[in-house]
Amino acid sequence: MKISGSLTLLLLLGSVSAQETSESNPPTPSDLYAALKEMTASLVQLKADMATVQPVAFSASLAVEGELHIGPVPSDTPLIYRHVPTNIGNAYNTTTGVFTAPVRGAYHFEFHINSANSRSTAAFLVKNSENVFAAHESQPAHFMSSSNGVTLLLEVGDKVFVRLAATSHVFDNFNHHTTFSGHLLFPM
Amino acid sequence: MKISGSLTLLLLLGSVSAQETSESNPPTPSDLYAALKEMTASLVQLKADMATVQPVAFSASLAVEGELHIGPVPSDTPLIYRHVPTNIGNAYNTTTGVFTAPVRGAYHFEFHINSANSRSTAAFLVKNSENVFAAHESQPAHFMSSSNGVTLLLEVGDKVFVRLAATSHVFDNFNHHTTFSGHLLFPM
Amino acid sequence: MKISGSLTLLLLLGSVSAQETSESNPPTPSDLYAALKEMTASLVQLKADMATVQPVAFSASLAVEGELHIGPVPSDTPLIYRHVPTNIGNAYNTTTGVFTAPVRGAYHFEFHINSANSRSTAAFLVKNSENVFAAHESQPAHFMSSSNGVTLLLEVGDKVFVRLAATSHVFDNFNHHTTFSGHLLFPM
Repeated sequence: MKISGSLTLLLLLGSVSAQETSESNPPTPSDLYAALKEMTASLVQLKADMATVQPVAFSASLAVEGELHIGPVPSDTPLIYRHVPTNIGNAYNTTTGVFTAPVRGAYHFEFHINSANSRSTAAFLVKNSENVFAAHESQPAHFMSSSNGVTLLLEVGDKVFVRLAATSHVFDNFNHHTTFSGHLLFPM
Repeated sequence: MKISGSLTLLLLLGSVSAQETSESNPPTPSDLYAALKEMTASLVQLKADMATVQPVAFSASLAVEGELHIGPVPSDTPLIYRHVPTNIGNAYNTTTGVFTAPVRGAYHFEFHINSANSRSTAAFLVKNSENVFAAHESQPAHFMSSSNGVTLLLEVGDKVFVRLAATSHVFDNFNHHTTFSGHLLFPM
Repeated sequence: MKISGSLTLLLLLGSVSAQETSESNPPTPSDLYAALKEMTASLVQLKADMATVQPVAFSASLAVEGELHIGPVPSDTPLIYRHVPTNIGNAYNTTTGVFTAPVRGAYHFEFHINSANSRSTAAFLVKNSENVFAAHESQPAHFMSSSNGVTLLLEVGDKVFVRLAATSHVFDNFNHHTTFSGHLLFPM
């Protein structure tokens, strides 16, 4: 946690000690008020520092209901996860599928992809326009799944989303197999 | 982080300033004590706010030792993960397999399932009685695995566990493949 | 969050109240300075407690570029993930593949493994020398993947890494499929 402020209080503590030992020069009420003001400001700043740790967390799956097959897509295609059971801080946009960092910090993301019946599934976690980590599974038939996760240091406004790889497929249904989640670990 | 308290200190700071500038009406020792009391109460509250961030985190796998095949189950069946290397805060119940939220907050959960030899594996992460997200893999033979994860806002007493899907299988052994983990992200 | 300190302030608050009600024995400026010193020390300690929550988080994948096949290995073999997009706190060693806990606390780890073309993939997450959780998938051909994750309470200096299982394979390429990530949840 980043703590604002300075060593003012330690200096204050020192000056208080110094004054206390000087019996010929006792602290005046005005000295005491000045010290109280310094400490009050420090306490207010400390509260503000703590309050900046705002919770940011979302979880979403592709299909709201029924069954959803996407692919084969001709080129890398952003996925829009429309079932959103959790969106604390509203940093995930349900319309675009994009998470936008509201504060600078370390964020953790994970994504889980699936495919049914003779299809390959592959996707990238994308930071702005750069592919970061991939998930992929390919089998000639039946039901396959793959996952990946990553922690990224994001600046305010950085965007993170999932892109389905060209030529591949993804499946989801009312059970919510294909998901994308993220949360703030530490503001920085 | 949720911060209790009010703007009392800011008001105090203002009143201190106001009094300081009134030289004809200097602060009395009783005024100073009153201000100190206010600040002490605020500091005690701040410490209490910080102390409410109690660590809650668990990780568990199905099999303590040997090999464990479960399924095909006739109906959705809760899984009880009996090997528990981590249970900080004791919110995961080793006897029932159920995690119970000790404080209101955002929690992250993940589960990883496996099946060996011609079997399909499928499971749901359940909040109270509602299926949230699913993991599933099905291949005609060999060893298959699937994972999912989610962040949920839980009230005190909300229960989270994993349910093996009707007709499916799960496998674990002394290597601890099939696991369930969760932790508190933010009290709210 | 662990909070240092004691109930000194509460006692102080009590003594302040007691003195206030004793009008025949008003607080002296020296009493006030002593109270201010106590409170300053408490505030400094509170700031120090907050500052100990240093961010620690890394994410890494096996291959920096091109394609990388490892295996079949004759015995369990540590994996060295050389592509490191995130290493906040530098607790992950890019040369050895080992994460070393910089503070006592609960840490979350996840690992994702993959194999291409007629190969089985299996790996262990290792704490010091002990296998904790495993990931495994085996199919006769095509592309397979498996994942696991765990939260561990680590002492300062505890080491966590991933070991490829004897006889198995792992694959990665410029898309970064095979990854290892971890982060501090709570100092304890």
